[in-house]
Amino acid sequence: MDLTTFIGIVVGLVLIIFGIGLDSIGNFWSLQSILIVVGGTFAALIASYPARILKQLPKQFKILLKNPYNPLEFIDQLHDLAIIARKSGLLALEERANAMQDPFFREGLMLIVDSTTPQQVSDILDNTLEHIEERHSEIIEFYEKGAGYAPSFGMVGTLIGLVNMLMSMDLDEGADGLSVSMGIALITTFYGTVLANLFFIPIAKKLRVRSDEEILCRKIIIEGILAIQAGENPNFLKEKLITFLPQYEKGMGKKKKGKDEPPEE
Amino acid sequence: MDLTTFIGIVVGLVLIIFGIGLDSIGNFWSLQSILIVVGGTFAALIASYPARILKQLPKQFKILLKNPYNPLEFIDQLHDLAIIARKSGLLALEERANAMQDPFFREGLMLIVDSTTPQQVSDILDNTLEHIEERHSEIIEFYEKGAGYAPSFGMVGTLIGLVNMLMSMDLDEGADGLSVSMGIALITTFYGTVLANLFFIPIAKKLRVRSDEEILCRKIIIEGILAIQAGENPNFLKEKLITFLPQYEKGMGKKKKGKDEPPEE
Amino acid sequence: MDLTTFIGIVVGLVLIIFGIGLDSIGNFWSLQSILIVVGGTFAALIASYPARILKQLPKQFKILLKNPYNPLEFIDQLHDLAIIARKSGLLALEERANAMQDPFFREGLMLIVDSTTPQQVSDILDNTLEHIEERHSEIIEFYEKGAGYAPSFGMVGTLIGLVNMLMSMDLDEGADGLSVSMGIALITTFYGTVLANLFFIPIAKKLRVRSDEEILCRKIIIEGILAIQAGENPNFLKEKLITFLPQYEKGMGKKKKGKDEPPEE
Amino acid sequence: MDLTTFIGIVVGLVLIIFGIGLDSIGNFWSLQSILIVVGGTFAALIASYPARILKQLPKQFKILLKNPYNPLEFIDQLHDLAIIARKSGLLALEERANAMQDPFFREGLMLIVDSTTPQQVSDILDNTLEHIEERHSEIIEFYEKGAGYAPSFGMVGTLIGLVNMLMSMDLDEGADGLSVSMGIALITTFYGTVLANLFFIPIAKKLRVRSDEEILCRKIIIEGILAIQAGENPNFLKEKLITFLPQYEKGMGKKKKGKDEPPEE
Amino acid sequence: MDLTTFIGIVVGLVLIIFGIGLDSIGNFWSLQSILIVVGGTFAALIASYPARILKQLPKQFKILLKNPYNPLEFIDQLHDLAIIARKSGLLALEERANAMQDPFFREGLMLIVDSTTPQQVSDILDNTLEHIEERHSEIIEFYEKGAGYAPSFGMVGTLIGLVNMLMSMDLDEGADGLSVSMGIALITTFYGTVLANLFFIPIAKKLRVRSDEEILCRKIIIEGILAIQAGENPNFLKEKLITFLPQYEKGMGKKKKGKDEPPEE
Repeated sequence: MDLTTFIGIVVGLVLIIFGIGLDSIGNFWSLQSILIVVGGTFAALIASYPARILKQLPKQFKILLKNPYNPLEFIDQLHDLAIIARKSGLLALEERANAMQDPFFREGLMLIVDSTTPQQVSDILDNTLEHIEERHSEIIEFYEKGAGYAPSFGMVGTLIGLVNMLMSMDLDEGADGLSVSMGIALITTFYGTVLANLFFIPIAKKLRVRSDEEILCRKIIIEGILAIQAGENPNFLKEKLITFLPQYEKGMGKKKKGKDEPPEE
Repeated sequence: MDLTTFIGIVVGLVLIIFGIGLDSIGNFWSLQSILIVVGGTFAALIASYPARILKQLPKQFKILLKNPYNPLEFIDQLHDLAIIARKSGLLALEERANAMQDPFFREGLMLIVDSTTPQQVSDILDNTLEHIEERHSEIIEFYEKGAGYAPSFGMVGTLIGLVNMLMSMDLDEGADGLSVSMGIALITTFYGTVLANLFFIPIAKKLRVRSDEEILCRKIIIEGILAIQAGENPNFLKEKLITFLPQYEKGMGKKKKGKDEPPEE
Repeated sequence: MDLTTFIGIVVGLVLIIFGIGLDSIGNFWSLQSILIVVGGTFAALIASYPARILKQLPKQFKILLKNPYNPLEFIDQLHDLAIIARKSGLLALEERANAMQDPFFREGLMLIVDSTTPQQVSDILDNTLEHIEERHSEIIEFYEKGAGYAPSFGMVGTLIGLVNMLMSMDLDEGADGLSVSMGIALITTFYGTVLANLFFIPIAKKLRVRSDEEILCRKIIIEGILAIQAGENPNFLKEKLITFLPQYEKGMGKKKKGKDEPPEE
Repeated sequence: MDLTTFIGIVVGLVLIIFGIGLDSIGNFWSLQSILIVVGGTFAALIASYPARILKQLPKQFKILLKNPYNPLEFIDQLHDLAIIARKSGLLALEERANAMQDPFFREGLMLIVDSTTPQQVSDILDNTLEHIEERHSEIIEFYEKGAGYAPSFGMVGTLIGLVNMLMSMDLDEGADGLSVSMGIALITTFYGTVLANLFFIPIAKKLRVRSDEEILCRKIIIEGILAIQAGENPNFLKEKLITFLPQYEKGMGKKKKGKDEPPEE
Repeated sequence: MDLTTFIGIVVGLVLIIFGIGLDSIGNFWSLQSILIVVGGTFAALIASYPARILKQLPKQFKILLKNPYNPLEFIDQLHDLAIIARKSGLLALEERANAMQDPFFREGLMLIVDSTTPQQVSDILDNTLEHIEERHSEIIEFYEKGAGYAPSFGMVGTLIGLVNMLMSMDLDEGADGLSVSMGIALITTFYGTVLANLFFIPIAKKLRVRSDEEILCRKIIIEGILAIQAGENPNFLKEKLITFLPQYEKGMGKKKKGKDEPPEE
């Protein structure tokens, strides 16, 4: 799993367990509560989405496992390809395209190898990129919806517990029994809040950051492929693509004065 | 009903009933509470919308029953029509148009059969599509409004129960009676929360997904019809339309390397 | 009053009264609570808006009483006017314009009678339409603001009741007196929630729907007047304007196959 | 102070005092609570903004005192200036410009007196208008932030009161002392809610309405000055500028038929 | 640290401590509560962001320490540079560029010294500015996320406290022990609310204001550099750039009439 997401969730859980106290941890175990909160949240999510989107979820979790997209690597590859194209023509890129891991990059290269017009290359790649963005948003929204459902089903569970307690209350068992029932009822609200704030919201946000990184790489690839097709100078191409990076400014600082910390950061 | 919506709602209800406990299920039955929450929510929805929109609701539920739009099917049809148009001219499409199930598709074909100018075809179909989108949004917003009203009327019911309990409280009936009254009061909040989170919100979201699918198919049809009118190559047309699909990237991966799992998904 | 708004509010109130129980209805009457919630909400609304907007409110309520705008009627009128203009020239429209009930329509016709250039006609009518939209939004937002203030003043009232009860509590009057005071305190929250959810929110939404209908009619009138000035064919004009209507698709279905239920609806 | 804001706040406070009851008003006085809620809210606001924006606040309150911008007055002035410019040339406007109270108007006139090109006049005035809008939004957002902080610090105060009460509770002082402490704790929530709903939210909204009015006048001035520079007919100029006004439609109704109440309002 | 943020937070804390009362301050110290609220919030934030963004946070705090960007200073520098460029040509700017503190400004000047075309200068600087804005927004959103997590983890802590209290409640220790446990439970909600409203929200807002100021300076630099490249008149350049400033209007008032308080502010 993605490192900071893993660390964050583990640290959060450890702190919560520490807050509960190890000897009281049993107070917070309730299969019934888990079924209502976790089960109810996923039931509502299943009801919200078609099978087509639900099936993509396991694959999405793998994204968290993967190393993030590295835009610098793509820029270096584009720089190399620009040199090859300059030396041996666009057709020489076919071999490299076939060896390409990334299907978007490969497709883009094949388009210029196949002598598609620049306008068509740009149209097809932009169109594809737009649909990648839409699909990402759909997945991210899934977790955001979950963040909304979880506390609601926490409250549903608490209400179930309270109503059952109040309506079948036997005063003979005394206030002790009452307080235990109320404690059990509150556990579901606890589950719902933790589920939303330590899982759904952070994962949704992390996926959004990862998606932004991927989109950035895709934009660099599109820009680079069009520049290769136009026969641009490989070094100028590289410099232009570097302006896409957040690190660019830092680079500017270093290039000129070797300052370690650019003031405008 | 749409399969995942049906499954999600049933699973959700089963989990809630399991959480309540079969022997306590009677605690949660209260006609009065249902009338306040469900009735109040629908009364507020009726007050919010004109008859024109309210009448469309039953038909909208049928949408959930229907199979979803399949963009690949439309692309195949457009491919066939492009071949016919190439061979026998645009007029040859009239027979196919008349056999067309989908009225939007049929209208679009009739426009090019009737030699309407490309600009007019595009204007009329875009205009129609815009109004389809607006109508969809109106319906989806209906469920979103319901998701807002339901917990509010749940709270209204709980407040009614609490005020009645507190103001006519007879201490002679003891704490037992008090706790039962409070239990009954909380049931309406329970109803409101479940109604919003297991019905209104998931249905609104599912309708939004379905609407997006329909809009995508309509965009493919418009693009395809304009390409047929322009006499574009049927195979190129098909390839271009496929870039509209979320599955496109996967297709790219397979076409080139037969990879089962495209990394950029 | 607008029919569904009237029905919805009455049904909602009846259900709430039924929920309260006829013999307990007296528990919910408190002039002081009404003054805090309704009075406080309107005081906050008065503080939020200048007199200019507050004065328009009674007139806005009349809008709810009026029959809604009927776009088909306007299309028929524009069709007739296009025929007259074709036969007898634009000047022949002056008499019809003077008999026109709708000032926007009349103004638009007078502009083309006065030989204003198409660009100026379009500019003036678009400008007017934009300001109509802004004024509508201002009024709708008034009710949305009210929906926000009402529960807040409900809470203010409940807090007043609770603080007074707690601070001047005389334990000698026993728990009976305490519970009655608490009941009274909760009534204001009840009022605030009902006021927001059965009045302000539904009325704001209904006004938005009515506003959208009026804007649609205004757009049809602008399009139609410009087409009449350009001397377009009356039948083509009518067909073009019908594409503005939500019912258009249904019309397409009927025109071609007499299907009762167009699948794409 | 602006009349309706003053009336609304006074009426709201009177209703709240009436709800409290004059003899209980002492229950709601607590310097400590005021310091936490009002002080905490302003401390958070001070922490949120730089001194540059905080310094502008007193001046902003004066805006509420001023009479609102009257667009009709500006239209009349522009009409007069257009007549002068037609008769005696643009240079004749210099004297009038110097006598102008409004600096934006004066600057605009000086630009055309100085023979700046229409493009430059338009650029400079649009740029200035954009920055006026940004500054207004910054100020309005200040009050909106305040509306968010106030209830939060109300809750902070209530939590302080509750924790202190619960942790130092001396059961010997009996339930009477307990209830008084709880009452005091709730006062801060009361303060926070009133502060947000009777001050911050209404003032933010009123400032937004005033800002919209000023922006409208500025747009009329820009349009008018450019028309004067272009030598447009003063009467046509006036008619065009009147279409900017919300009252325009009413004017249309009157101009043609003397109807007292235009149906489309 | 930024002055008003420092003052606001200190004043807020002093008021809260005053509200608590110095002798009760011990009631609010609980390491466990701090760990759950502060630790949980940061754990969730760590889970939400990749290491790349988390690493930038300390540097961002330094921004609060720095003096804000002063647009007037940049305008003066651009005015000087324009004079130099006019006198001695664009190449004469190289020395000044190398002495420039601000890397963005330096990079911009080097671009025109290197005879890059105006279009490329504009493209590169706009691209860089866009990425600066995106990075700023990412950082600001970090604090906004924190403002959302803090009250949620406050509630998690309170629920832990309540459940533990209710389930292990020993009635023999009496109501005194119960009330102390409940007090401890509420402390976490107190921490969460203060953390959000006195730290995260004000800092997020202050960073937004600072970001807007920096963006404004960057826009002035871009505009100025392009004008210098185009050989514009230094005085006209200065006047044009001043229209970017919020103080512009005040300046207008002074220039013409020496009025201390421009009415349109």
